[in-house]
Amino acid sequence: MAEQGVLIGVGLGPGDPGLITRRAAGLIEAAQVIAYPALAGGESFARSIAADLIPAGAAEIRIDVPMSRARKPAQDAYDQGAAEIAAHLQAGRDVVALCEGDPLFYGSFMYLQARLADRFLVEVVPGVTSITACAAQARLPLAARDGVVTILPATLPDAQLSARMDGAETLVLMKLGRHLPRIRTFLAAQGLLDRATYVARAGLPDGVCLPLAEAPEEAPYFSMILVAKETDPWL
Amino acid sequence: MAEQGVLIGVGLGPGDPGLITRRAAGLIEAAQVIAYPALAGGESFARSIAADLIPAGAAEIRIDVPMSRARKPAQDAYDQGAAEIAAHLQAGRDVVALCEGDPLFYGSFMYLQARLADRFLVEVVPGVTSITACAAQARLPLAARDGVVTILPATLPDAQLSARMDGAETLVLMKLGRHLPRIRTFLAAQGLLDRATYVARAGLPDGVCLPLAEAPEEAPYFSMILVAKETDPWL
Repeated sequence: MAEQGVLIGVGLGPGDPGLITRRAAGLIEAAQVIAYPALAGGESFARSIAADLIPAGAAEIRIDVPMSRARKPAQDAYDQGAAEIAAHLQAGRDVVALCEGDPLFYGSFMYLQARLADRFLVEVVPGVTSITACAAQARLPLAARDGVVTILPATLPDAQLSARMDGAETLVLMKLGRHLPRIRTFLAAQGLLDRATYVARAGLPDGVCLPLAEAPEEAPYFSMILVAKETDPWL
Repeated sequence: MAEQGVLIGVGLGPGDPGLITRRAAGLIEAAQVIAYPALAGGESFARSIAADLIPAGAAEIRIDVPMSRARKPAQDAYDQGAAEIAAHLQAGRDVVALCEGDPLFYGSFMYLQARLADRFLVEVVPGVTSITACAAQARLPLAARDGVVTILPATLPDAQLSARMDGAETLVLMKLGRHLPRIRTFLAAQGLLDRATYVARAGLPDGVCLPLAEAPEEAPYFSMILVAKETDPWL
């Protein structure tokens, strides 16, 4: 039986093509087949980060994920994408799955992996996460020595945020979007407003880094708040 | 007055030179001056990751950090390193500070930044963290959707680990070293042993990835345990 292809999930970093790793760049440039998610029929952010590296003749598998609170539409999209990927792998062709940020950090690569790892080999090339890109943009230390870092989706209700924030020196609140005003009010009530930094689209030309008190009313999806409760940078 | 140089902290990733970003690689290849930490007079891990990229004529500033429980010896080392860096910056030369992993994620770059940022411009290029490299090696999702991720140093006593573990779907226990047996016992008592994966030297030729129950008695410094309490990869 002919050898099957390998599914390779590659992290592209947060959006600046310069933050693609050398290994990921080499894999994309040599790819026969690429796959990538796209939201609700719009442009694929993942593909746009890697665009200059994609070889002219590569076959492309676009996984259109509908905007929907229900899970089934997205499940169907990943079923469909996985089936197309499987056909290439079966035929002996590797498939490079493009992932913004890092494939396994709050990403969607796991949905392809879950559908394909029982039959095919899967490899993952890690990427730069949006968290470290935001910290770099803000030049904020993300913990040191014995500090605890807690990463929370801003979608959680205030009571859950409260419970999970104790005991962490550094907090990262992701997926801000329309939750920004509530989070700002919440952090102010906790006495943490002056320890909070808002970062959006880190590393991109329109990237923004501001004290949270000065942040806009609405945040794009690719934004977060970093709260450094205690970091002593002097050792 | 002549223009001063910029201090640029570049993340190198966890050890595989292929995981250096394209931007970091370009900065190192063009560097007039590089700086890097080395532990107790031994080889510098950071320098070894970037070795093939360092230009032949570059000036090198080696920051020898002594092994010591006291903070003063390390403080003195960073004072000395910062002074050498400042001399180059003052003379108009950029200094590229090599950082294993990511500069601001549990790193030592903040100690240079704290000493120099008041007088000089500082830039940070984020890198791939050891956490995402370990997840990639283990092919383990590091949280999805509304999951909470808590990153803890394994140096914390059991009672503090306990308190901080609640409410997180994913736990990352770093800086294992000699704490591995205690952590293994602790996680077993919490009923989490079968959800725990041990990863050491991710991405390197001698990298290891095992169920925690099968891990050795002692772990190198660059190792961690990933605990996936609940991740449903099927959406």
